[in-house]
Amino acid sequence: MAKYVYMFYEGGAKMKELLGGKGANLAEMTGLGLPVPRGFTVTTEACTRYYKDGKQIADDILAEIRERLALLETNIGKKFGDPTEPLLVSVRSGARASMPGMMDTILNLGLNDKVVEGLAALTRNERFAYDSYRRFIQMFSDVVMEIPKSNFDKALEAVKQENGAKFDTDLTAANLKEVVRRYKEIYRAHKAADFPQVPQEQLIEAVKAVFRSWDNDRAVIYRRLNDIPGDWGTAVNVQEMVYGNMGDDSGTGVAFTRDPSTGERKLYGEFLMNAQGEDVVAGIRTPQSLEQLKDINPEVYAQFVEIAQKLENHYKDMQDMEFTIEKGKLFMLQTRNGKRTATAALKIAVDLVREKMATEREAILKVEPKQLDALLHPNFEPKALAAAKPIAKGLPASPGAATGKVFFEAKDAVAAYNNGEKFVLLVRAETSPEDIEGMNVAQGILTSRGGMTSHAAVVARGMGTCCVAGCGEIQIDEEGRYFIDKNGARHVEGDWISLDGSAGNVYDGRLPTVEAVLSGDFETFMAWTDKVRRLKVRTNADTPHDAGVARKFGAEGIGLCRTEHMFFEEDRIAAMREMIVSKTEEQRRRALGKILPMQRNDFEGIFEAMDGMPVTIRLLDPPLHEFLPQADEDITKLAKELGIEREALRNLIRDLHEINPMLGNRGCRLAIIFPEIPEIQTRAIIEAAVNVRRRGVNVLPEIMVPLVGDVRELKYVKNIIKATADKVLAELGAELDYLVGTMIEIPRAALTADLVAEEAEFFSFGTNDLTQMAYGLSRDDAGKILEAYFDKKIYEYDPTARLDTTGVGKLIEMAAKLGRGARPDIHLGICGEHGGDPSSVEFCHEIGLDYVSCSPFRVPIARLAAAQAAIKQN
Amino acid sequence: MAKYVYMFYEGGAKMKELLGGKGANLAEMTGLGLPVPRGFTVTTEACTRYYKDGKQIADDILAEIRERLALLETNIGKKFGDPTEPLLVSVRSGARASMPGMMDTILNLGLNDKVVEGLAALTRNERFAYDSYRRFIQMFSDVVMEIPKSNFDKALEAVKQENGAKFDTDLTAANLKEVVRRYKEIYRAHKAADFPQVPQEQLIEAVKAVFRSWDNDRAVIYRRLNDIPGDWGTAVNVQEMVYGNMGDDSGTGVAFTRDPSTGERKLYGEFLMNAQGEDVVAGIRTPQSLEQLKDINPEVYAQFVEIAQKLENHYKDMQDMEFTIEKGKLFMLQTRNGKRTATAALKIAVDLVREKMATEREAILKVEPKQLDALLHPNFEPKALAAAKPIAKGLPASPGAATGKVFFEAKDAVAAYNNGEKFVLLVRAETSPEDIEGMNVAQGILTSRGGMTSHAAVVARGMGTCCVAGCGEIQIDEEGRYFIDKNGARHVEGDWISLDGSAGNVYDGRLPTVEAVLSGDFETFMAWTDKVRRLKVRTNADTPHDAGVARKFGAEGIGLCRTEHMFFEEDRIAAMREMIVSKTEEQRRRALGKILPMQRNDFEGIFEAMDGMPVTIRLLDPPLHEFLPQADEDITKLAKELGIEREALRNLIRDLHEINPMLGNRGCRLAIIFPEIPEIQTRAIIEAAVNVRRRGVNVLPEIMVPLVGDVRELKYVKNIIKATADKVLAELGAELDYLVGTMIEIPRAALTADLVAEEAEFFSFGTNDLTQMAYGLSRDDAGKILEAYFDKKIYEYDPTARLDTTGVGKLIEMAAKLGRGARPDIHLGICGEHGGDPSSVEFCHEIGLDYVSCSPFRVPIARLAAAQAAIKQN
Repeated sequence: MAKYVYMFYEGGAKMKELLGGKGANLAEMTGLGLPVPRGFTVTTEACTRYYKDGKQIADDILAEIRERLALLETNIGKKFGDPTEPLLVSVRSGARASMPGMMDTILNLGLNDKVVEGLAALTRNERFAYDSYRRFIQMFSDVVMEIPKSNFDKALEAVKQENGAKFDTDLTAANLKEVVRRYKEIYRAHKAADFPQVPQEQLIEAVKAVFRSWDNDRAVIYRRLNDIPGDWGTAVNVQEMVYGNMGDDSGTGVAFTRDPSTGERKLYGEFLMNAQGEDVVAGIRTPQSLEQLKDINPEVYAQFVEIAQKLENHYKDMQDMEFTIEKGKLFMLQTRNGKRTATAALKIAVDLVREKMATEREAILKVEPKQLDALLHPNFEPKALAAAKPIAKGLPASPGAATGKVFFEAKDAVAAYNNGEKFVLLVRAETSPEDIEGMNVAQGILTSRGGMTSHAAVVARGMGTCCVAGCGEIQIDEEGRYFIDKNGARHVEGDWISLDGSAGNVYDGRLPTVEAVLSGDFETFMAWTDKVRRLKVRTNADTPHDAGVARKFGAEGIGLCRTEHMFFEEDRIAAMREMIVSKTEEQRRRALGKILPMQRNDFEGIFEAMDGMPVTIRLLDPPLHEFLPQADEDITKLAKELGIEREALRNLIRDLHEINPMLGNRGCRLAIIFPEIPEIQTRAIIEAAVNVRRRGVNVLPEIMVPLVGDVRELKYVKNIIKATADKVLAELGAELDYLVGTMIEIPRAALTADLVAEEAEFFSFGTNDLTQMAYGLSRDDAGKILEAYFDKKIYEYDPTARLDTTGVGKLIEMAAKLGRGARPDIHLGICGEHGGDPSSVEFCHEIGLDYVSCSPFRVPIARLAAAQAAIKQN
Repeated sequence: MAKYVYMFYEGGAKMKELLGGKGANLAEMTGLGLPVPRGFTVTTEACTRYYKDGKQIADDILAEIRERLALLETNIGKKFGDPTEPLLVSVRSGARASMPGMMDTILNLGLNDKVVEGLAALTRNERFAYDSYRRFIQMFSDVVMEIPKSNFDKALEAVKQENGAKFDTDLTAANLKEVVRRYKEIYRAHKAADFPQVPQEQLIEAVKAVFRSWDNDRAVIYRRLNDIPGDWGTAVNVQEMVYGNMGDDSGTGVAFTRDPSTGERKLYGEFLMNAQGEDVVAGIRTPQSLEQLKDINPEVYAQFVEIAQKLENHYKDMQDMEFTIEKGKLFMLQTRNGKRTATAALKIAVDLVREKMATEREAILKVEPKQLDALLHPNFEPKALAAAKPIAKGLPASPGAATGKVFFEAKDAVAAYNNGEKFVLLVRAETSPEDIEGMNVAQGILTSRGGMTSHAAVVARGMGTCCVAGCGEIQIDEEGRYFIDKNGARHVEGDWISLDGSAGNVYDGRLPTVEAVLSGDFETFMAWTDKVRRLKVRTNADTPHDAGVARKFGAEGIGLCRTEHMFFEEDRIAAMREMIVSKTEEQRRRALGKILPMQRNDFEGIFEAMDGMPVTIRLLDPPLHEFLPQADEDITKLAKELGIEREALRNLIRDLHEINPMLGNRGCRLAIIFPEIPEIQTRAIIEAAVNVRRRGVNVLPEIMVPLVGDVRELKYVKNIIKATADKVLAELGAELDYLVGTMIEIPRAALTADLVAEEAEFFSFGTNDLTQMAYGLSRDDAGKILEAYFDKKIYEYDPTARLDTTGVGKLIEMAAKLGRGARPDIHLGICGEHGGDPSSVEFCHEIGLDYVSCSPFRVPIARLAAAQAAIKQN
C-alpha cells in the first residue's frame, strides 16, 4: 500500500518527486540537524489521487493524516485545540518544481476562540495571540473559503484609522480583538455560518485548498510557461508554527547565499522584526538588509551565516532560504536552489566549478537553457521597466527590447529608415513575405494577429529582431495609419512606443534600453557544453549575415537555408513575377535566367560564411501567389511593368488563389510542375560551390527537396537535380560531393520513411508543418482555439512551440527508425521552430537524431539543452 | 535463375501473372488441344526488368528469346528470313489484366524484300504476299519506329485513287507493290535509313516496342481508371502467323459466347472474309454477323461453335474470342473472359449459377463492383450518346445522365424549379453549403473547379445527383450568367445542355435519357453477396429520404449523419446566424433553442427510417463562416435582419475568416469553444430517440465527435454529452443506450488511438480529411497538382478517391490495432468517400474493420466489394 504522509524525519532531498521541493528540503535540513520546526508532508501522490477521486481526499489518506497529526502532537507535546498547550501549524504547498507565489499558504492553523485565549495566557502576550488569530481568519477565509481578501483589508484599515494607527504594529491587543470580531462577522456574512472552530476540520479543509490551488489559473499559466506537467501535483507541508511576531526579539526574513542578480558570492537578504510570513515581501514596512541583523542579534546572525554556508556546501548550489526568529531563537523554514538572472546563473555555474564545489557536468545542469536568450538581446533598463505600465500584452514572439516610431506599412518603414530614422517599429495586423524589407529595417515588430509561429514571429526570431505577435488587445487601422491600445488611446504614425519581446508587453513612449554584453563566463560555460553533447547544432539562416551571427554563437552548419527569402528583394521579385506569368517553358527559363546570377551570389556568400561546415539548402517552397500583389492598384502597376493585360493578371492571381494554401501548390509540387525551378536553383548551388572552392573554401552542400509526401516525388526532383549537377560540373570541368535529401514535414512521408529513404541521403524533420498537419491545425488560425484550450485545460502548452512528443514525436521516431533501417548512414536532423526549444532538443537527443537546427539566436540554447540531455541520459 | 520465355505448350491459364492474360490463355488453349498457331511468350517479368535496366533488354533475356525462336523454327520447320520456308510471326502485348486496344500489335513480322518474293512463290499468291508486306511495313513503322500512321494512310489512299479502287481488296498485286515502294520511301525519309531487313532485329525491336507501349499515355490513363498497378508490366506473345487475307476462303473474326450487352445466352460475333487483324474492327468494310459463316463454311462454323462452348465450359464464364480462317482452316488466336455491360454481368452471373456452371461465390467474383453504379442511375440513350460530341470534359464526379436548362445561381435554380421548370441544371465555378437548396432541385451539377471530392462532388453523390466537376475547359461568368465551352461557344441562362456524370462529359442541347430499371437478377445477386461478406455496409445520409433510399439499396445503418446540412435551410440558417453573432452564452442559448425542435424532428425522421439499425450522428463540424454571407449586399441585408450594425457584422465575418479553414476552427473545436452547441444537439438526439421509441421504433444512436486530435478534446465534449443526456433522460423519466465515439480524421488521433480509445466507444475513420492531412494536400486545391502528377507518372491514382493503403492505410491499420488493444470491443468503421470504393473496401476488410459507410448509391457497390474481399481472403 502506498504511503501518503511522511514525517520530516522520514524524508530527504532525494524524495523531491514525492514530497515536493519544500517538503524534501525541510526533511533534508531536519536530517542535517538544523533548527527546523517539526512537521509532516502529505505527498504529491495524495494530490494526484485527490484529482483522480473527483476532488476528494479518500478515507485512507484522511486516516493517515490524522494518525501523523497525532504522532506530531506526541512528539511536540502539544495538542490541537488544547488551550493549555495548543498545537498551531502552518499549511504550505510545495510542488516538485519551484512555483514561487503560485500556490497558497495558511499560517496559525489550529486557533479558535478558546485557543486564542489560551495562547494569550501561555505567551503572556494577548496582542500576539490576537494578531495571529486575525491573520489566520483572513488567510483561511481567503485561501480555503474563497472570500475576497479585500473585505478583510478594508476592515483592518478601518480599525487602524479609527485608532490612529499607522502600521499594523501600532495596533493594540484590544484593537486586534476588534479586528477579529469584524473578521468573524465578514465570514458569517459570506458563509452564513460561524468561523470553523475545530482545528482538525480546519486542517483537512486547508489541505484540500492547497490541492485545489494546484489547478488555479496562476498555477496553470505558470506551468505552461515553465514546461511543468499538469499531472505532477503538489505536496502539502504541515509544520509547527514558530513566530516572528512575538515582539521585538522576533522576526522573519529571506536570504540568498549569492547575489541572484549578479551571481556575486556574498550573503544577500532582507528581514523584518516583529513580523510574520509574507510581511517581508508585502511591502507593508520597509525590510532591513541582512547585515543589519549583525547589530540586532550577532549570535543569531553568526548562526545563520554558518547554516547558509553549510546548506550551500551541502546542496552545491546557491540557496534561497526563509527563516524566522522566535524570541531570539533561529528557525529555518525553507531552503531551495535560488532563482537567478541569466548573468548570475552563468557566473555561479562557472564560480562553483572554480571553487571545486561542482564538476563541469554538474554546472551545466544549473543553467536553464531558455535563460540564455536574455543574454543575447538588448533589454530595457530594469528600473524604467518596473515603473512602466503596459498599454497592451501580446505573445512574446521574439525576445529583446525595442523602442521606436510606429509605421503601419512596410514601405513607409523603409522610407523612414532610408531618411535616416534609426528607430523604426513595424506595426501590422499580420505580416506577409511582401513585408520582408520593412521587417528587416525595423527595430521591432508588433502584430495583432497570429501566434508564436506566425510569419512575423518566425521571421523576427530568424533575424533576432524583437517581436510581439498576436496582440489582440490593440486594434490596428492600417489604412488610417493608427492603432488603439487596450485603454482606448490612439497611436498614430511616428508616435514612439516600446516593445518587450521577451514578455510580450507593449509600452507607450520611449523606454531606455541596455545592450547585451557576453561575458567571459559565457565562453567558458558554452565550451563545457560542447564537450558533453552528442547532438550537433546547426542554424536556420538565409543570408551570409545570419550565417555569420549563428557561427559566432556556435552553429556547426546550416540546417535550413530557405531560398525564397532571396526572391523577395525588389530586383528579384520582378524576375520571379515574370517567371510566374510566363506562358511557355522558354519564357520561364528566360525569367529564371535573370535570377540565376543573384542566387549564385547569395550561395557563394553563405558557403564562405560556413567554410568547412555543411549547408542545407531548401529548394523554393512557398506558393506562387505569395509573390504577386493582391491590391487593385498594385495589380494595375504590375500589369503595366510586365506588359500584360490587367485582366489577364487579375485572372492569373485568382487562379493561383487557394482555399487552403498550406495544403496547396508549394514545395516539391512547384518543382514538379515547373522543373525549370529546381534546375536553375541546382545550377546556382553547384556553380557557387565550385566557385568558392576555387577560392579555397571548403564547401559541403546538401540540397533539400521540401514537402515530399511520396518517394516518387523526391525521385522525380532528385533526377532533375542530379542531371543538372552532372551537366554543370561537366561544363565547369569540376567534381563535387553533395547530398540530396528531403524535409520530412508531411505525415505520409514520415509513415513511409523507409521508402523515402531509398532516395534521400538525409532527412530534416520540418516540425512546423509536420505538427500543423498531424494536428490538423493551422498556426495562423490557431490563436482563438489555443486560448480556449488553455482556458479549459485541454492543452497545457502550444504544440507549435514545444514539440508534442506523444503524437508528432511518435511520427518522428517512427520515421527515424524506418529511415535508418532502409539507409543506415542517413543523416537525421530537425529544422522546425522546435529546434531551439529545450524540451524538444532533449527529445531529439533521446531518439538519436544527428542534429537540431534553429534560428541563430537560439543556437546557444540548443547547445546547452543538447548538453543537458546528454548528461541526463547517462 | 528466372525463366523469361515460355513456349505456349509450357504454360497454362494459371500463369496469368507471369504470361499475361493473352499468353496464359493461348497456352491453355494449346493444352486443350485447340487449333492455336504455335509460339512463345516473353514474360511480364522481362518487361519489369526492361524498365529496371533503364529501358533495355538485358543480354540474358535476349539470349533466351533467340533460343526459343530457334526452337519454334525447329518445331514448325520454317526459318526466319528463309525465302523458301519463311517463318512469319505476330508480336502482341498481353498484360495480366485485359487492357483492350491500349497497347500495340505487329503482324507479319519476318517479311523483307527477299522473303516477300519467296512468300509469293510459296503461296502462289503475289497479291497476298505484298498485301502482308505493306501491312507489316506500316505497323512496324508506326508502332516500333513512331512514324505517324497518317503518312501511310495518305500513300495508300493515293494509290487507290490512282487505280480507281474502292476497297483495299480492289488493289492488285502490282498496286500493292507500288504501295510497298512508297511505304519504304516514307520510312527512308523519316529514318534516313532503309527499312530493316533482318527478321531477328525486327523481332527484338518489336518486343521492345511492346514493352514501351506499357507506358504510353493511353495505357497509363487506362490503368489509372481501372486500378491497375503500373509495375505489373506486359508480356509479349510471339506467334506463327496465320492468314485471313489469303483469299475468299480465308477470313478473321471476333465472337462472344453470350451477348455482352444483355447477357443473353447465344453466340454473338462478326467476321470479315479475306481480311487480317484489325480490319474487322477498323470499319473499312462492314463485317458479317457470325451466323452468316454457317452459309459460307458450315464445317468451320460447327467447329467454332463447339470450341466456343468448350471454352465457356472450361473457363466457366462468357468468352471473348478471336479467330482466323486460313484457306478454310480454323485457328484460335485468343480467348478471354469477355467485357460486358452491368446488366449483362448480372444476368450472366445469375445464369451461370442456374446452369450449374458456377457456385454463388464464383459468380460474385464475376461482376465488377463499380459496374453496378450504371444500374442505379439514368443513362443517355446509347445511340444518341454515340452521335453526340462533348463540348467540354470534366471529372465524372457523380454518375448518371442529366439534361436541363442551365442556371448560374442557386437561387435562380430554385426560382425556376418553383415556377414549374423540372429540368434545371446548376452551373457554378464551385459550390458551397449556401448552394444546397439549388443543388437539391437540380437534375445535375456542373462545376469548373474542384476535384472528385469537392463540395459539389460529395454532396451530389450523397444525393445521387449527376455531377461533372472540375471542368476546367469551360469558363463561367456567374455574374454575366453564361459560360463559354471549349469551342468558344456561349451558353446563357436557360440554354439546354446535357451532363454525363459517369464519363464527365458535357453536351450541347437535350440528349434523350433512359431510366434505370433494377432487374430481379439484381436482387438475387445482391442476396448472395450478403451471405458471404463479413463487413457491414452503412450509409452516409443526412435526411430520412436519403436514409430510405440507402435502406432500399441494402444499407445496414447510418455510418455518418452530418448535422450541419440540416442548418442550411432558410428558417434554420437564420437561427444559426443569430447564434453566431451572439455575444453572450445566454443569447447563444436562445438562438440554439430555436433550432432544437427542428433538429429533434430531423432525428426522429431519420431514426424512424432506420428502425432497428444503428445511426451515427456527427456533431456540428463546419467552420462558422460557412453560415455567413460574403457578398456586401447580403451582409447589409443580414445585419438588418439581425438588428446589428453592418460594420459589426462585417468585422465578425472578417474575424471568422481563416487562412486555412480546413485546419481551422471546426469540429470538436467549435464544441469546446461553444459548449452550448453539443449540449443542444445532444438534447435533440436524446429527446428524438426517446420520442420515437415510445412510438415503437427500435433506436440505436451513436454520437460522434468530429476532428478530435487529442483524447482530452474528446473527454471534454463527451462530458458535456453525458451530462446533457443524463439530464434529458431524467427529465423524460426514460433510459436509453447510446454510444459516444469519434471520427479518426486527424493524423494525431490515429497515432495516439490507444489514448483516444480510452474515451471512445467507436472509431469512424474519416478518410477524406485523414487523407488530405496525411498528404498535406487539400482536395479543393489539388486539381492542377494531380494533373501534373498523372502526366509525369508520379501518381497512378487520386488518393482522395482511392484509399492510399501504403501511407494513409498504415495510419488506419495502426489506429485500429491501438484502439482494439486499449478497448477490445471498440467498433471500427470508415465513413469517408473511400467507403464506396471497391479497392478501399477490400482494404477495410483485410485490416478487420467492422463496417464501411458510403453514399446511398454506392451501398450496392460496397456490398459486392465486401463480399469479393471475403471470398478472396479465404
